[in-house]
Amino acid sequence: MMEEKEEAEIKRICREVIERIRPDEEERKKVKAVAEHIIAELNKKASEMGIEAHAISVGSTARNTWISGEADIDVFIMFPESVSEEELKEKGLALAKSISDRYEERYASHPYIHAYFHDAEGKTEYEVDLVPCFSVKAASLLKSAVDRTPFHNEYIVKRISGLEEEVLLLKQFLKCRGIYGSEQRRKGFSGYLCELLIIRYSSFVELLRHASKWKYGERIDIEGRGTYKGEDPLIVIDPVDPNRNVAAAVSLDSFCMFIDAARDFLACPDASFFALAKEKAMTKAEFVELIKERGTELVMVLFEAPDVVEDVLFPQLRKAEASVKSMIERNGFTVYRSDVSVGGDKAFLVFELLVWRLPEVKRHVGPPVTLKHHSEQFKSKYKPFSFGKRIENGRYVVDVKREYTDAVELLRNELKSCGLGKQVSEAIDKGYEVLKNEEILFFEGLGSFFREFFGLN
Amino acid sequence: MMEEKEEAEIKRICREVIERIRPDEEERKKVKAVAEHIIAELNKKASEMGIEAHAISVGSTARNTWISGEADIDVFIMFPESVSEEELKEKGLALAKSISDRYEERYASHPYIHAYFHDAEGKTEYEVDLVPCFSVKAASLLKSAVDRTPFHNEYIVKRISGLEEEVLLLKQFLKCRGIYGSEQRRKGFSGYLCELLIIRYSSFVELLRHASKWKYGERIDIEGRGTYKGEDPLIVIDPVDPNRNVAAAVSLDSFCMFIDAARDFLACPDASFFALAKEKAMTKAEFVELIKERGTELVMVLFEAPDVVEDVLFPQLRKAEASVKSMIERNGFTVYRSDVSVGGDKAFLVFELLVWRLPEVKRHVGPPVTLKHHSEQFKSKYKPFSFGKRIENGRYVVDVKREYTDAVELLRNELKSCGLGKQVSEAIDKGYEVLKNEEILFFEGLGSFFREFFGLN
Repeated sequence: MMEEKEEAEIKRICREVIERIRPDEEERKKVKAVAEHIIAELNKKASEMGIEAHAISVGSTARNTWISGEADIDVFIMFPESVSEEELKEKGLALAKSISDRYEERYASHPYIHAYFHDAEGKTEYEVDLVPCFSVKAASLLKSAVDRTPFHNEYIVKRISGLEEEVLLLKQFLKCRGIYGSEQRRKGFSGYLCELLIIRYSSFVELLRHASKWKYGERIDIEGRGTYKGEDPLIVIDPVDPNRNVAAAVSLDSFCMFIDAARDFLACPDASFFALAKEKAMTKAEFVELIKERGTELVMVLFEAPDVVEDVLFPQLRKAEASVKSMIERNGFTVYRSDVSVGGDKAFLVFELLVWRLPEVKRHVGPPVTLKHHSEQFKSKYKPFSFGKRIENGRYVVDVKREYTDAVELLRNELKSCGLGKQVSEAIDKGYEVLKNEEILFFEGLGSFFREFFGLN
Repeated sequence: MMEEKEEAEIKRICREVIERIRPDEEERKKVKAVAEHIIAELNKKASEMGIEAHAISVGSTARNTWISGEADIDVFIMFPESVSEEELKEKGLALAKSISDRYEERYASHPYIHAYFHDAEGKTEYEVDLVPCFSVKAASLLKSAVDRTPFHNEYIVKRISGLEEEVLLLKQFLKCRGIYGSEQRRKGFSGYLCELLIIRYSSFVELLRHASKWKYGERIDIEGRGTYKGEDPLIVIDPVDPNRNVAAAVSLDSFCMFIDAARDFLACPDASFFALAKEKAMTKAEFVELIKERGTELVMVLFEAPDVVEDVLFPQLRKAEASVKSMIERNGFTVYRSDVSVGGDKAFLVFELLVWRLPEVKRHVGPPVTLKHHSEQFKSKYKPFSFGKRIENGRYVVDVKREYTDAVELLRNELKSCGLGKQVSEAIDKGYEVLKNEEILFFEGLGSFFREFFGLN
């Protein structure tokens, strides 16, 4: 009885969410029209320019698995394998640019054009990626990482029909946990991975039921032909390339967050699981109150975000985080937690400190007493002893004056001595602020960031 | 030239010190008279009581190596080997008591009588140990640890003549470093060890010259017959028992303190090396000022010293120190240094803290998320989460309220939960105080203790 009631409740919530996030007929028609227009234009231009290439629509807009209002159109421009990499790049980008009014040239593992197109009425603007790739015989024979995408597209298109809404539920569910997307910032679940998981378990709820029992190294192999040998928290064999793990980017914590959320939702189904964090962001007053209650010191290192893609920026921010954390702790203070992010045009590191002020005195350990020469050098250097000297475990120990008794001072003076990564280092060279507690300004996105940081639901 | 001048200076200082610490003719005569009187009385009583035993004088008073005003008379009552241990104890103690007016029965590794005797004029009181032992054929054939002493005495008496003043210098030098005496409190150099070192190197200064180059495991074997295999900082083979290290009680730090002091004295000879710490004790005002300067918190756990000998008490105090230190650090605070001691009728532990106050928030790590059952138990226990929950490295982590945010509070409430040793535990059960900084009363001896604790010269 109970279970039936729960099941009905889950169905009701899912229904409601789907109604909210599913693109309506009008949106779908508009997106399709824009994609088709772009493809037609590209093919036409190719023929005009004598380029042997054709365009195809891929990604969520090709599969009807985008969330309402978030359609990103992906169009791949396919070149024969005989073309050289340089020619592909040159001609592909030229072709893409020839049909775009407003665009940026971008570079991930390969170059592509990120362009902006309007629908026929000029009301809605869409972001469009125009990506040149090779038309290889099989996904495993790829010449560049993007060559797999058309195969993924084909695989999903053939199987997803009727399951689109389940994919939408999963994407929204992951998004609200902050683990949708395989990029460095999230280290979560890609759109393609979501589609495969739904194909494997047929429904969102059925996936959750399985996920709630997942173990580390969970292996999903739809076609049963996997040869992937790596060790990852989650392994989902790529149906078009059996030696590849589609979930390789899913970090241990993203994996666990999904398991945890799956259990929570099944135990207490609630529509709030599908509500974005920004809808429940923290106010500055709440933040100041919370810090007071916790009794910690919250220190932020804030600077202009360098102009690089997030997949380059986030690893550098994390490197900086680790390096600064280790500097703070080398100086005797205690970091309770730390994180990094970007918001608006700012990038920042955040450190919650358990100990941020220390006494003047600091232990300095010298050589073993039995090493006569080293002992004499040490003793002449530390004479007169600022506080005192003694012998502990056969070594000289002196009390010296601590260089930094305040963690904020330390950060203000020594930040640049940390290993920071190229672009972050350059950005910090241009200037940075070290702010603490109520000094921190609540710019766009910071409320959501802190809500997540403090693990509040 | 320089060296000659230094050498003359050293000679001058040593001469001066010897004049001060060497017993004069009158003192020597008095002490000898008391010892001879005791021996005569013991032998007379033994014969009266039909006990087959004879008394001999041993130790520093038998060898003229006591420091003026510090004569402790040691008299051994020697029984034939044929006597049983029980008989030795019974008859030996009865004999000792029969000649003593005021005495205590004591027990180290063996029972003995600690008595008080006056000189003929009744002016000076001497402490006398009356120790029954077996007269064994060789020191290596001992039946109890004290049976070696007569052999030590014989060995030294035969060789020390003319070197007595050098022994006095060494004893005073060690005393002023706090490392004279092999007992648990000091873990330093025994009187017998001092005599052997002087016999080996012929003079105090020559010993210092060698000591300044000592390495860990330094081995001294006067008779060249050592069979001792142990690893100690200093190994001095017992001439009367080649399998024994006379310096086994010398701790690494006592060993190093001697090496360090030897170098310092040779480099800058000064009479202050022979001045006792109590002559330069710290005042309370100096203490309060120093703590302020250091910026630390000095916490003392103070209680009535239990009525046991120091060799029993000190190991217990050190055990308590380690156990309390680990409790303090388990609770997140940082101990900079710690020590224990006794003064008057009080025993105490001292902790200098680098961190003594902490924020309310504390990290509590739960089970791995993939362990479903444990996760559910954990989540139901920590719900509602006081501060927040999150996943780190695949495990649940919650912020909980720290039980103790103040180290003094912790000590006041949780001291008894530490492993303290029998007598210390009983003493603490009767009551104790936890005092910090200026709350600490400067009872007898504390000024010298803190001078040493802070490593001030």
